[in-house]
Parts: sequence; structure tokens; C-alpha cells
Amino acid sequence: MPSYKAPLADIRFNLYEMLGIDKRSDLPEFANLDRDTIDAILEGGAKICEDVLAPLNQIGDEHGCVLENGVVRTPPGFKEAYKTLCEGGWNRLSAPEEHGGASLPILLSFTMTEMMFSANQAFAMYPGLTNAAYAALMGTGAKWMRDHIASRMASGEWTGTMCLTEPHCGTDLGLMRTKAEPQADGTYRITGNKIFISAGEHDLADNIVHLVLARIVDAPAGIKGVSLFIVPKFLVNADGSLGARNTVYCAGLEHKMGIHGNATAQIVLEGAVGTMVGQPNKGMQGMFVMMNAARLGVGNQSLGLTEVAYQNALAYAKDRIQMRSLSGAKAKDKPADPIIVHPDVRKMLLTAKAYAEGGRALSLFCSVLLEKVHHHPDEKVRKDSDEMLSLLTPIVKAFLTDNGWQATMMCQQVFGGHGFIKEWGMEQFVRDARINMIYEGTNTIQSLDLLGRKVLGNNGATLKKFGKLVAALVEEEGVNEKMAEFINPLAMMGDKVTKFTTEIGFKGLQNPDEVGAAAVDYLRVVGHMVFGYFFARMASVSLKAIAAGNTDPFYQAKLQTARFYFAKLYPESATLMLTARAGSKTLMETDLALA
Amino acid sequence: MPSYKAPLADIRFNLYEMLGIDKRSDLPEFANLDRDTIDAILEGGAKICEDVLAPLNQIGDEHGCVLENGVVRTPPGFKEAYKTLCEGGWNRLSAPEEHGGASLPILLSFTMTEMMFSANQAFAMYPGLTNAAYAALMGTGAKWMRDHIASRMASGEWTGTMCLTEPHCGTDLGLMRTKAEPQADGTYRITGNKIFISAGEHDLADNIVHLVLARIVDAPAGIKGVSLFIVPKFLVNADGSLGARNTVYCAGLEHKMGIHGNATAQIVLEGAVGTMVGQPNKGMQGMFVMMNAARLGVGNQSLGLTEVAYQNALAYAKDRIQMRSLSGAKAKDKPADPIIVHPDVRKMLLTAKAYAEGGRALSLFCSVLLEKVHHHPDEKVRKDSDEMLSLLTPIVKAFLTDNGWQATMMCQQVFGGHGFIKEWGMEQFVRDARINMIYEGTNTIQSLDLLGRKVLGNNGATLKKFGKLVAALVEEEGVNEKMAEFINPLAMMGDKVTKFTTEIGFKGLQNPDEVGAAAVDYLRVVGHMVFGYFFARMASVSLKAIAAGNTDPFYQAKLQTARFYFAKLYPESATLMLTARAGSKTLMETDLALA
Repeated sequence: MPSYKAPLADIRFNLYEMLGIDKRSDLPEFANLDRDTIDAILEGGAKICEDVLAPLNQIGDEHGCVLENGVVRTPPGFKEAYKTLCEGGWNRLSAPEEHGGASLPILLSFTMTEMMFSANQAFAMYPGLTNAAYAALMGTGAKWMRDHIASRMASGEWTGTMCLTEPHCGTDLGLMRTKAEPQADGTYRITGNKIFISAGEHDLADNIVHLVLARIVDAPAGIKGVSLFIVPKFLVNADGSLGARNTVYCAGLEHKMGIHGNATAQIVLEGAVGTMVGQPNKGMQGMFVMMNAARLGVGNQSLGLTEVAYQNALAYAKDRIQMRSLSGAKAKDKPADPIIVHPDVRKMLLTAKAYAEGGRALSLFCSVLLEKVHHHPDEKVRKDSDEMLSLLTPIVKAFLTDNGWQATMMCQQVFGGHGFIKEWGMEQFVRDARINMIYEGTNTIQSLDLLGRKVLGNNGATLKKFGKLVAALVEEEGVNEKMAEFINPLAMMGDKVTKFTTEIGFKGLQNPDEVGAAAVDYLRVVGHMVFGYFFARMASVSLKAIAAGNTDPFYQAKLQTARFYFAKLYPESATLMLTARAGSKTLMETDLALA
Repeated sequence: MPSYKAPLADIRFNLYEMLGIDKRSDLPEFANLDRDTIDAILEGGAKICEDVLAPLNQIGDEHGCVLENGVVRTPPGFKEAYKTLCEGGWNRLSAPEEHGGASLPILLSFTMTEMMFSANQAFAMYPGLTNAAYAALMGTGAKWMRDHIASRMASGEWTGTMCLTEPHCGTDLGLMRTKAEPQADGTYRITGNKIFISAGEHDLADNIVHLVLARIVDAPAGIKGVSLFIVPKFLVNADGSLGARNTVYCAGLEHKMGIHGNATAQIVLEGAVGTMVGQPNKGMQGMFVMMNAARLGVGNQSLGLTEVAYQNALAYAKDRIQMRSLSGAKAKDKPADPIIVHPDVRKMLLTAKAYAEGGRALSLFCSVLLEKVHHHPDEKVRKDSDEMLSLLTPIVKAFLTDNGWQATMMCQQVFGGHGFIKEWGMEQFVRDARINMIYEGTNTIQSLDLLGRKVLGNNGATLKKFGKLVAALVEEEGVNEKMAEFINPLAMMGDKVTKFTTEIGFKGLQNPDEVGAAAVDYLRVVGHMVFGYFFARMASVSLKAIAAGNTDPFYQAKLQTARFYFAKLYPESATLMLTARAGSKTLMETDLALA
């Protein structure tokens, strides 16, 4: 069975040395937080992930969820673990105190969710989706919804879902058919079929509140006629008490490649009672709040899987002996060397490590942006942070999940034949990681969102702001010889990305398919620039600590990982720029090839 | 359920137009073969794959194999399908007539196995391993083994296995512990534990003949003390009749990520009676015959999966409507366009198509080399062919299986959320493809075999011979303007690979870890050079057909695929050369990072 130990040293490095959260005064949530308090939270959270959730991961995969007579049973142990999680308040670290939360920075929620996803992605999705639904209700829901529904989501008594997809429409929500008929009492009767509803039905909570996109009768066609509703499994009276069973049912569970422990439900609405959230025909506004939260969450899922896969592959590579090192026996007392002596085994391990550490730095940086969006007193800071977060969200979602796929596969490869056997648990990480590239908007959709909307959509203005962060670091460290190995490639990439973006922008004006042809490659190039920035910053912080006499080997380790990243992963951008520049012609003029 | 239609047009293009097998007189097996005969064989083989094997693929995945009271039951339908296959002689197309075979060129066996792997990899492994064991016995077995055992493997009455791996040794067979005690009658008593034995126990055949590597008592340590034995499940008397049950048992079946329909057995030998094949302590010689056949077979497995995944993704992309084309609505009569209008969907499809077609060209080229090794009258041709095949074998194994992993994943991605659902069958292709990168020598081992042994081991002499093929094509087509788009990148790559190889060779002399650090990248670079060569040749043949007035759209389609390949896949080598050149330092000087 795989094991998991929360990477607290690297988390602390990010919180304290990269983000300085114990020292900042610009955000109310950071006040009164000292290192001892934060450390205690980290350690408590780590403990529940390591001891309660991780041991259920393979059990969840093996048993899956079972639908019998309309009731969905989650895998053995999930119910008890969910109770433990909620009783400890670990599901609501950032919720306000009136909802029983600890009003902690979103940063700490992100850290907690990363650990939960490492331990058990399928389990962690239940509270994860609830948090996304909570965010949507807190953002656009009426007061009674916040008071009576959101509060119970925060406590974990009730859970939430996102009901978007229908059999004929996933990406293209404008094709949606589920219909909402207005009733005299202000509610709606909702009828339709939803599929792929994660955590759609289960036995963990007393009520499930579905956030459902539907089309009011006579609404405009397409996406501009879609409204958002809450459709609780059990109706909720105005005073918050539970009413009758609503006519929303689980018609079946999907059999999937991975995340077996999460119930992926087909949901049938048969004139179910729904209440509108927000304004008519503006359903996507509320849903976007949820989707953006969910997209950051999905990136975090693959970050978690990358980390746990790395840890287990590292342990195996040190333990398994096989063949001698090409440069001479290393473990002369043994019949063979541990496989970690082999360069390519190290490459696979370091790839996972670098993707985990780069992903963590980016993800936690984003969590501070999200904090600012919600809580910063200065409106301009809120707006700027929102813009930067919008730019980075598709990168977190797509770059971290593509990286997670590669990393979990490589960690599985380290195990040789044993990696293919269920018992070792490595193949589950790969299967679980696969969905993260698909749901909450496929990674192709993320790349179009980045290039089309977030970059070209405002003439590169937000990208330039990120470029300024890069330029500032380059300027600050440009004369530091010890930083040259990190700063030089970063500076070069900054210039290349600017030129590359302009080029694609021009080509896209002539032919929009050029944008579609370049977008996936473009996202990975920008992803590497962003990771390059964070690795350079991490190297800078580490060099300063070393210069100040800190002898913790953590800092040398960080420098080694950064060097590996720039030498072996960052150059992927060379090919990506070539293939993006090759344009759309060899894709679009292929009707005979694709006949 | 996925469907499968054998790609006969592309197979015929390779057989007739690329390899000219209906016109060559240098090989005895090709004599008396006309197109009608070959076409009839192709169509008959296609039919059994499409109609009998493909429909069992998901059933095999769902049911898996079951061990009860020492008996392994294969999935429903496998037994009947195996009978149909063997009765039709489809399992032994290239076996000699005295073994009931058709003495057909190995080329046609390769074509048949590609189709079988497309239809049902887990099933096709039963006869596949038998063929590898057959080759080993025909190569190094005593006459009675060829007459009484190999003949029944050819008929399919009996099957074969390869028993190499033990719990503590996979790659490093020198660590092997299974021991063989010589008996007075010339046989051996063999005792030990073998794991990961594909087709190790099942109900398809009357007898299973294990080819077992073991160490004779007092043999030299390491790989030079390993001998090869046959250990039949039921003993075989000198006249070929069946004797007593041997003490070789299936102790368990592995639960795996994929290929559920194939029984991956733990095999326990409890003083089982074995007979030596070949010479004492020279077991690897016989096993290498088998392993090389198996490595080509594994490449073919991923070629088959790439093809079938592509076919299903293409059909889905034409059928599924979602969003409008960025360059304006294409299917104006529908509420959205088929997703094949989107550039990145086309890129994913074309990647799979190009990897399938490049892989097929290479694989069938290798099958002619293998034919020459076995049957060419001129010893020099046999030797040269063997050398070239040795160079290309690790490329077929690793490049085609890495490509197959990427291609099946992309084809799954085309299905969006549906790709993650078992019902659609796409996720099975990915899971099944995964093992091909691991077994028969991991892809890292293949890369070390290529760079260390096959290239640097003879100072690049064999690689230079392949380089001469490239140079000849460049010279032949260098003045043909229509070929410039294919020939120019190929010529450039040829030069780069020469320089690149020399560089790594020099660095490797200083530090052997440089070879280990570069090998995986190197294999993919050479893989692209090889694919580039075949795509250029395929383009040349196609342009000639078009110039000759042939209006079959197949040729234009081939040109489009070749253009795509050079524009979008071939440039991967740019990054690979950068990362290989970055050397071993950032891998090896990372003890703190990997602490």
C-alpha cells in the first residue's frame, strides 16, 4: 500500500519564505496568525490526511460506490472519515466564524486540500465540490440561502454539487435542454437529465444541494438563456428545516477509469422544485464563481497526486536493488545497486519532484490572489488580483494536470512491472490523475481560455503584468552571479513569450483557427515561464538563506531541483514554440487524411 | 462499444508499394505469392479480428481471469475464439508446412498480429507468447522438442510462456534464484518462484510449456550462470504423448491496471521436471531469440492500440457536435459543429494517425529484415539484416509504445468526459497500452540497449548503415521540388544525429552516466529520424502514384499525414537534443533533492 507524508517543509517554505504570510499586514485574514498557530493547523491537517484519508484510498478504488434501490453507498470507511473531517472543522478552515469556520486564509484551505488530494482524491472531492457550491451561494445566493444552506454546507451536514453536463452537451452549455417552469410561489419546476455529476448522490450527508443550470421556458437561445438554480434533494423550508423529498433522483452511477470512490451520478430531474440563484438568464455568472474555484481545485488535485506518487517512487527507488550503476558499483555490500543510482530513474523522480514544487508555489501564490480578491480593503488591489488570477487559473488547471499525468506515469514506471499491479497503488494515481485533464473544462478549453480570452482578449495587458514580475526579479538578481543559471533562461523566455504572443495575435487576426492551433502549445510555454519564475524565486530565497548561514539541507535541495528543472523540463518550450509556429495549415488542410 | 475495421488500404500500401512483396524474388517465402492470394489472407485475417476478437475486448477487461482451485478461467468467449483462430490457422501463418503452417512471409504474421492487437491485446498475447516460445524452440531446441512440442505450439493445441522475472529480479536477471538440480536421466528438477508470467495458466489449451530461466546448482554467479529449460505443465514423453502433471503451479493471478483478459500468473516450481534448451549457462542465448521476437511484438501491440483508438476517436469527432468553429460555423444546419472542426481535436487525431502509419511502416520494414535473417540465401544479407534489425528492435519496442501511450491518451481526450467512462472503451486502450512501456525490458532499458550496445557498442557502424538509407533517399529526391518539404527536415536530422551521437560517445567515455542520462532522449531522436525516413519514403511513393495519374485520395491523405508529422511531431527532437545535451550533472548531483 502506498504511504503519504505531508510535505510540510516545502509548504512552510512557501508560506513563510516565499509568501511571508506570518508577516503581512495587508490582508485581514493574516492578522493575529503566528507561526505556532499555523504550524499547529498544518500538523493537525497533515495527521488526518496521513492517518484517516490515505488508508482509505485503495479501499475506495477497489469497492467504488454502489447504487441500490436509489441509495448510493460510498466505500467502507468513507462515512466515518467524513464525520471525522467535519467534526474537526478541517473541511471549512476558511469559512467565516458565523458558519462555524475558522476564518483562516484561503492559503491554508489550499494547503489542506492539496494534502487531502494526495491522500485520497476521490474522497476529497465530496467536500471539494461542496466548497465550490458554497462559494457560489456566498457569492450570488439570497440571504436565506447563505444563512440556511451555505451554513450547512460549511458544517458538512449537507453537501453540494455542480449540475452542468447533459448527455449531448459538455463544453457547449448553450445546447442545454434542462428546462425550468416558473411557479406561482416564485420557485421553478425543473425537468431534465444531467450526467457526470461528481458526488451526485451518496450517504455521507443528510442533504445534497444540487446547483443546476437550466433554461427557463421562453429564455433566449444559447448560453444567454441559462439560469442557475438550487435543487436540494430534500426541500428546505424558509426556516431552514427539511421538507419533502424533492423529485431529483440518481438514475445510475458511471463506471470509470479512476476516482472510483467518488459517486459520478446520472441525475434525473422530474419537475423538481428549484429556486433561482442570482438573476434569470445570468446563470453562468454564479456558475463561473464555482467553476473558477473548481479549476484551481482540479490543479490542486494533480499537484496532490504528483506529490504522493513522487514520495512512493522515491522510497521504492532507494529500496529496490537491480543492476549496477554504469559508473561503477555503489552499494558494494549488496548484490546490486538501488535503482536510484541510474540516471533515468533519477530523471523520472526529479520530474515529479519539480512539477510538485513548481505547482505548489504557483498554487499557493494563486491562493493569496484569491484572498486579495475576497478580502483586500483596496478595490484596485482586488481588481488587479482578480485579473492576475484569471490569467493564472487556466494554467493551474491545465499545466498542473498535464504535468500530473506525466509525473504519475513516470513514478509508476520507476516501479517497473510492479507499477502495473494494483497492490502497489501506483497505477491508481495514474488513473485518478487522468480525469483532471478532462473535467471542469478540458485542457484544450483551458488553453483557448488563456490564449483567446485572457491574453489576446485584452491585448496581452494581464500577461504584461506577469511579465513585470519576471522583469523585476531579473533586474533584482541580474547582477548576482550565483543566480545567473536561473535568471538567464528566465529572462530569455520572457522576451520570447512576448514575441511569440504578438506573432500568434497577428496570425489570429487573419485566421482564428491559428489561435486554436497554437493554444495548447502556448499554454505550456507560458506554464514553463511561470514555473521558471517561481523556481528562480525559490532559488533566490534559498541562496539568501544559505548566505545567511542557514545550514538546513532543504535549501541546497531546492537549488538542485531548480537546476534540474531548468536543464531538463524548461527546454520543452523549444519544441512547443516550433510546433505552435507551424500553424494551422497542417491541421486544417487534412480533410482527406481524416476522411 | 468501440469498433474496429482493419486498415487494409494502408497495409496494402506498405506491402505492395513500399515493400513490393508481390514482386521480389530475393526471398523464397515471397515466391508464388500474388496479390490475390495476399489480399484473401488479409481479408480473412481482418474478418476474424473484427468479428470474433474485437467484440470480446471489453468482455475480457470486465471479467478478467479467475483462479479457482488451481484452475484459471479465461473470460467468457475466449476459449471459443481461440479455437476458431487456431482452426483457421491464423495463429501460424508463417510456420512451416510440416507444422501445419502456411509458410507465409513473416510480414503477413506481423500484419495479422497488428490486427489482433487492435482487436484484443489481452487475447492476442496467448498466441503471441506461444509464437515467441515457438521461435526459441525452433532456434535452439533439440529435434524432439521441435517435432513434438514446437509442432503443437504451432497448431495451438499447446501454448508457451516466458518465465524470467522473480520477485526480487526483473531487469537484473543475474540475481535469479530459481535453481535447477541435475537428475540421472538428464532432466533437471527446478525449484523457485516466477512472477508476472503472461498467459501463465489458462483453460485455452491442453498443455502449457513454460520456458524457464534457472540456475544450475554450482553455476557461475550472475547472468553467465543462467540456463534455459522447458517445463511443461503436463510432462511430454519422448513420443510426444502427455505424461504426468508436472509440479509447476499457478499460485495466484495479479490484479493489474490493464490487459485483464490475459492471465498474469505467479508460477511456483516445486522440483518441477525441466529439460534444458541449448547449452548449460547459455540460457540467455535462447531467451534473447524469444525476447527480440517479443520486443517487436510489443511494439506491434501499441501500434494496434494506436490504430484502433484513432479509428474510434475519428468516428466520435465526426459525430459529436459541440461549439462552433472559430473560423465560422461549418454545419449551419445543426445547433453546433462536429468537434472535428476544432484545430486541437484534429491535432490529437492526426497525432494518433501519424504514429500508427509511421509505426506500421517501420514494423513491416522490420518484418522483412526478420524474414531475411531467417530465410535469405546469402549469408552476408542475413548478417546485415540481423544487425539492422538489432538496431531497430529497441526503437520499435520503446518508440512505438511511448507513442501508443500518447496516442491512446489523446484519442481518449477527444471523447471529453465520455472518454473516462468504461462503456466507451477508450480508457481501456490507455490502460492496456501502459504495460507495453514496461514489459519485455522497460523503455529505459531499450534506450540503453540502443545507445550503449547497438550504437556506441560498434562505434555507430550500424547507425551509419541506416544513415546511408537516409542519404540515398535524400540524394534520390533532393532535386524534386515537391519532395523538399519532406526531404529537407530529414536531411537536417541525419546530420544532427551524427553529430549528436559523436558528442554523447565522447562524453560517455569520460563518464558512463552521461550515456544513461542521454539514452531515453536519444532513442526518441533516432525514432523521429527513422519515422522521418519512412514518412519521406511514403510521400515519395505517393507523389509518384499521383504523377502517374492515380486519383485514389489515399495518396493525398498520405501526403497530408506526412506534412502533419513533419510540422507537429518531428520537432520534438529539438527539445530532446537540448535535454540530452544538458547531461548527467543535474541528475546525479541531486542527492539532497532526492534525500
